[in-house]
Amino acid sequence: MTLMKYDLGQGDYKNWIISENDFSTKFLGKCESIMSLGNGYLGLRSATEEKYVGETRDMLIAGTFNKFDDEVTELPNTADLTEISLYINGERFTLIEGEYSDYNRSLNLKTGELNRQFIWQNKNSGKIKFEFKRFVSLDNIHLIGQQIKITPLEKNIEIKVQSGINGQVSNTGVQHFSEGDKRVYNSKFIQYTQKTIESKIDFVLNTTHDFKVDNKDIDVNSLISMDRRKVFYNYDLTLESEKTLTIEKVSNIYTSRDKECEGLSYDRLKEYSLENLRKECIKGYEKLQKESKNAWQEKIWSKVNIVINSDDDYEQLAIRFAQYHLVIMTPAHDNRMNIGAKGLSGEGYKGHTFWDTEIFMLPYFIYSDPKVARSLLEYRYLTLKGARKKAKENGYEGAQFPWESAWLEDGEVTPVWGAADIVTGKPEKIWTGFIEIHVTSDVVYGTWHYYNVTNDQDFMDKCGYEIILDCAIFWQSRLEWNEDKNIFEINEVIGPDEYKEHVNNNAFTNYTAKWNLDLAIKYYNELKENKVELFDKLNQKLNLEENVAKWIEKKDKIYLPTPNKDNVIPQDDTYLTKEIIDLTKYKNQTNVGSFFKDYNMKQANEIQVSKQADIMVLFLLLEDLFSEEVKRSNWDYYEPKTLHDSSLSLSTHCTLANDLGETELAYKLFRQACDIDLGPNMKTSDAGIHAASLGGLWQCVINGFGGVRMINGNLRINPTIPDTWANLEFPIYWHGDKLQVNVDKETLKMKNITKNNSQIKFTHKGGEYVLVDEITIELNK
Amino acid sequence: MTLMKYDLGQGDYKNWIISENDFSTKFLGKCESIMSLGNGYLGLRSATEEKYVGETRDMLIAGTFNKFDDEVTELPNTADLTEISLYINGERFTLIEGEYSDYNRSLNLKTGELNRQFIWQNKNSGKIKFEFKRFVSLDNIHLIGQQIKITPLEKNIEIKVQSGINGQVSNTGVQHFSEGDKRVYNSKFIQYTQKTIESKIDFVLNTTHDFKVDNKDIDVNSLISMDRRKVFYNYDLTLESEKTLTIEKVSNIYTSRDKECEGLSYDRLKEYSLENLRKECIKGYEKLQKESKNAWQEKIWSKVNIVINSDDDYEQLAIRFAQYHLVIMTPAHDNRMNIGAKGLSGEGYKGHTFWDTEIFMLPYFIYSDPKVARSLLEYRYLTLKGARKKAKENGYEGAQFPWESAWLEDGEVTPVWGAADIVTGKPEKIWTGFIEIHVTSDVVYGTWHYYNVTNDQDFMDKCGYEIILDCAIFWQSRLEWNEDKNIFEINEVIGPDEYKEHVNNNAFTNYTAKWNLDLAIKYYNELKENKVELFDKLNQKLNLEENVAKWIEKKDKIYLPTPNKDNVIPQDDTYLTKEIIDLTKYKNQTNVGSFFKDYNMKQANEIQVSKQADIMVLFLLLEDLFSEEVKRSNWDYYEPKTLHDSSLSLSTHCTLANDLGETELAYKLFRQACDIDLGPNMKTSDAGIHAASLGGLWQCVINGFGGVRMINGNLRINPTIPDTWANLEFPIYWHGDKLQVNVDKETLKMKNITKNNSQIKFTHKGGEYVLVDEITIELNK
Repeated sequence: MTLMKYDLGQGDYKNWIISENDFSTKFLGKCESIMSLGNGYLGLRSATEEKYVGETRDMLIAGTFNKFDDEVTELPNTADLTEISLYINGERFTLIEGEYSDYNRSLNLKTGELNRQFIWQNKNSGKIKFEFKRFVSLDNIHLIGQQIKITPLEKNIEIKVQSGINGQVSNTGVQHFSEGDKRVYNSKFIQYTQKTIESKIDFVLNTTHDFKVDNKDIDVNSLISMDRRKVFYNYDLTLESEKTLTIEKVSNIYTSRDKECEGLSYDRLKEYSLENLRKECIKGYEKLQKESKNAWQEKIWSKVNIVINSDDDYEQLAIRFAQYHLVIMTPAHDNRMNIGAKGLSGEGYKGHTFWDTEIFMLPYFIYSDPKVARSLLEYRYLTLKGARKKAKENGYEGAQFPWESAWLEDGEVTPVWGAADIVTGKPEKIWTGFIEIHVTSDVVYGTWHYYNVTNDQDFMDKCGYEIILDCAIFWQSRLEWNEDKNIFEINEVIGPDEYKEHVNNNAFTNYTAKWNLDLAIKYYNELKENKVELFDKLNQKLNLEENVAKWIEKKDKIYLPTPNKDNVIPQDDTYLTKEIIDLTKYKNQTNVGSFFKDYNMKQANEIQVSKQADIMVLFLLLEDLFSEEVKRSNWDYYEPKTLHDSSLSLSTHCTLANDLGETELAYKLFRQACDIDLGPNMKTSDAGIHAASLGGLWQCVINGFGGVRMINGNLRINPTIPDTWANLEFPIYWHGDKLQVNVDKETLKMKNITKNNSQIKFTHKGGEYVLVDEITIELNK
Repeated sequence: MTLMKYDLGQGDYKNWIISENDFSTKFLGKCESIMSLGNGYLGLRSATEEKYVGETRDMLIAGTFNKFDDEVTELPNTADLTEISLYINGERFTLIEGEYSDYNRSLNLKTGELNRQFIWQNKNSGKIKFEFKRFVSLDNIHLIGQQIKITPLEKNIEIKVQSGINGQVSNTGVQHFSEGDKRVYNSKFIQYTQKTIESKIDFVLNTTHDFKVDNKDIDVNSLISMDRRKVFYNYDLTLESEKTLTIEKVSNIYTSRDKECEGLSYDRLKEYSLENLRKECIKGYEKLQKESKNAWQEKIWSKVNIVINSDDDYEQLAIRFAQYHLVIMTPAHDNRMNIGAKGLSGEGYKGHTFWDTEIFMLPYFIYSDPKVARSLLEYRYLTLKGARKKAKENGYEGAQFPWESAWLEDGEVTPVWGAADIVTGKPEKIWTGFIEIHVTSDVVYGTWHYYNVTNDQDFMDKCGYEIILDCAIFWQSRLEWNEDKNIFEINEVIGPDEYKEHVNNNAFTNYTAKWNLDLAIKYYNELKENKVELFDKLNQKLNLEENVAKWIEKKDKIYLPTPNKDNVIPQDDTYLTKEIIDLTKYKNQTNVGSFFKDYNMKQANEIQVSKQADIMVLFLLLEDLFSEEVKRSNWDYYEPKTLHDSSLSLSTHCTLANDLGETELAYKLFRQACDIDLGPNMKTSDAGIHAASLGGLWQCVINGFGGVRMINGNLRINPTIPDTWANLEFPIYWHGDKLQVNVDKETLKMKNITKNNSQIKFTHKGGEYVLVDEITIELNK
């Protein structure tokens, strides 16, 4: 059963509208997440104005991490600005009390505006038309606008409105804030402050209300009510039949962590934020929303317009949906912050950053908005202190990036205990923070990927080299010498496939570690030769001379699993020896996680079952290392054993299927990937959208069907679009130039729009090409 | 509009049942509070198994105070054991989704059992009969039993049950607990632990479920689910039409603060509590509830049976309602704990103890269950350390009891900031903790009252004298010499009437302070003469010799306001000089607090308006000091200016009206007092029941209409029952004997049931009497 509807957009908004055409309290999380609003500074789940049991009202501000008690740090759920309770003729308005019809809720991806409308009535009210609108501004990142229109169609009604700021919200019961000040200014502006208890970040929230009837200002009886952590206004009015009441609520939020507020005293922060609201609220909802809509057009859609001309409009919508969320999840404004695994759309994974950023979301920004990509990598640079701490604590050298990353110096923030073991009844230990160590290679890969696509030498000089070199120092210290076999091993790890814990010589981990050492040696030599000053600085800091000797000595002795007689590379030392069982029952996207209803983790470890792409990711990152035959054999072996229980799995498989020339299969996987958040399963997005999957959608389209890849520093474009697509258009940045790419069944057309470089070299199906202004390549020759 | 119905009790349960005959989400707090369950160890608000927006799910354990951040200490809201979510054919069961009929929810005061039943159906389920039962055991104070019966009347149905322990609850957003351990034992018992963050009290909760169909055990598909602070089982089953599913959930809770658990390690506490549940759950719901019901009969109703034979049964119900709550609010099991102003029925006043105990609830226990009264006073003795700290911090000597009291050594715990000032928009400062100092006299009064009624010399020797003497030391240090007038004053206080802040020479405060000094001098002399050893001990501790000189020197110079030409005693130095306004609009019990919609506290201070009884309380406590004429003149002056905005006001006025011979007026006030929690106002009990008002109900009946009073150490009985009453029967304890009193229109009959003393002296209408076995007095002679 799905309530979703994606084909309601018309005209300018065709394939821009995601909608829900009925309402159910069983599935509140779905639209709260997929229709969530934001701008990278703040993320606001789209919980409705009126409250329901089962809702999750979250407003998360990027980077404002706080630790409660001895739990791991997380993004605190800020006081709620969006709750507006309505009483009609003394009865509470909700959609489950009274009756409604003509229901629609929709998010306009183009304008960033959420809209909800229906006709509702209770026992004695007659029919009433309701319309709720809301946006989080992309123009003023601190601002939230709300508008409610109420039109009684049959009778005069009495309306009571309760609205204000509610700091009683928590993170699933955890309270991160001290209560601060509650104030009302000029009988109009409510201000509420709160301070995170451990990290001592001040939050200041302001809100104000405005009432109009048929567009004329009216005076409304109002009464302040202050409760614990709560300041509300109660408004009472009578509304005549067929007249329209418009309620506007304009709110903002600032924190002492905001770069623009650095150095402001607490009192000044309160004034500063209130001044902003005083200034903004005068404009009114319509103008404020227009400013935000324009920002979406100017900053995003005019710059990264991807066209999928498909028989099925859903795919055009899906890629826009992915882009929309990639924007609102990303704190592009502040390089001290990164993307959480659920963006800012829910409490899942506590706002922590994983390898998801470098491997799944970063490529979008590298090719579409390189400045943002750089900011995300600068975050890793700024967290080197924590990565060094982690390495040291584990007895290693260099920089070991944390599996889960939060504020700059936090280091590892993965929680230690998870859900119940169904066999023993005890919570299971979460091992990823201890032994899922490949993230260090992933950060290096992201850095190298960015550098090669952008040619951003300034970034490399300031951050990139140091990351890559210090991670190599970690890897060489992590290698374990096997005296018997005369090789270096990496034992006791978790690879990308998290259903195999405590394995030895995970292929992904070993190959990428070796690759990191190779890369470090290469850059060591280049720096020593060409950038003496920088080399001296880094040499002093990282003791490079001594380390490079170790890299050179060890790198070729690292054990790299090779294809067996069936051309299958062992995922790790024991995977291929484990029991093979019938997985049909679990291998179905509507059954994500169902395997653990029958097995516990210990049992899963002893079966040839995988959560997600493992060696497949290796094939994508270092694709020139492996032959097509090897890739195909491994696909045939591992994919049937892979449950795709991680949302990171499908897009990798889709892109790889493209590489193998399996366009039909790739298309099937792409469609499944589109469904991870948008699909008919009404529960899977409850804890927030799947950020990596949304980055993965872009990868399916541009890296997969578009065939765009950076191979060893070179641009390669091997596009093949699905049968049902007429053409695919997209922009990419390469070495500072913006290229427009258009692929149809017959031709690949490319155009250099910015022309900063006189020529762009690229390869296509093994051939070498040069793009000057425009180029057209026949695909089927 | 009221949903309440009080006349549904039949047969054995006539006038024992309070009911709600319809359900509304607007008024959830009313029944959560007035139907709350408990046993003095734990209090459980009667939030329903299924959740609703606006509910308050509270389980409070007496004495387990914790401080969050820099807020004042409060009783933390323990993890919820009572939530049980039901899904019928995939749709959530709530009373606002689907349709219901034949609704009734009722609390049986006699058995302590809560019952809820109705017929319900959703779109596709056909009619289903539901019955929910619940109790908190008075036999095993750690135990909570729940039972649900579901009978589909028309079709087979699919039922999903989600039930377990939910630690995501908070105190209005404040989280007092660290998350502890989550475990399942034997695939049957769920255990959840939590620890208060500052006071480090371990809580261990256990629960287990049992399923039967038509009384036969069945196996049910179950799946554990562990979430943050939450352990739940999911059960799935199919139920055939006309068969009855019985779900039983038996739970318990222990804390490391429990006296019986002192010395147990955390691990042992977990085992100990689980062993208890294993043992108890075997008995099943019916037997466990019977054990609790028997405890109610044996410990309470057989001992304190009050009979009101009135034309209106509501009054008999109301006094039982008061007694029921007086039992469940009172931590009789532990003298380190006292009664909160809302009992354990809600978060209002944070579980803190006020003067309410000594002046409003203690009398019930003094006359009905003296052991409990002693325990409550021992609490004050055990908090002397905090009282001495408070005096010292304020620059005084001796013991100054806190206006709000919590754990033993906490001292003053009144919060400093309250609701918004409607004029300035800022929160108002709460002054009571600083300057409402009469509570020190009130504790002394309670001590003296208890001693005189019980003759409990052991208590006096161990606790009572020290309290009285140390409070006198406080008072003499608090007196301020007025050089001009040659008198001692007590300035800058709040008297019982809290609408007058920062007043000088509040009559209640000055008179009771003087009385405390007199009493101290009297006991000083008695001790010195008759109890030399105790005297020496106390003299050493309290420096009595030096202090008594000061008492003697100062006591007669304390300014005691005397009646003016109109026989009115000034409530304080300035009350009579303030503006008199028309209060009609606010003087109405349905409008409690409405005055503050028009005025702020500063303005109230300048008007002759009172929140509650002030000088009237003085007339009750020290009634022999004032003539009937003075009492009447003051009544006539002050009552019209008193809004009864405090629930402490009506019962005092009722009792005093009786003293003035105004039985009809007294009866009217009594009925209003009955309505404070039971009445038609569906919102006033939201934060919890009004403990003092319920103690006051007993005072109306026994001290008022029953005319029972301790005057200067002597028993006085001047009964006058209302016209509509045929007779009134009640027991009282006097000097260790239990007396049965029966009053009708013509006679007063008294009987000594226990006969420990050969004679009981008492006065009636000025005459002196002696009770040996039985006595009958004609009233109208």
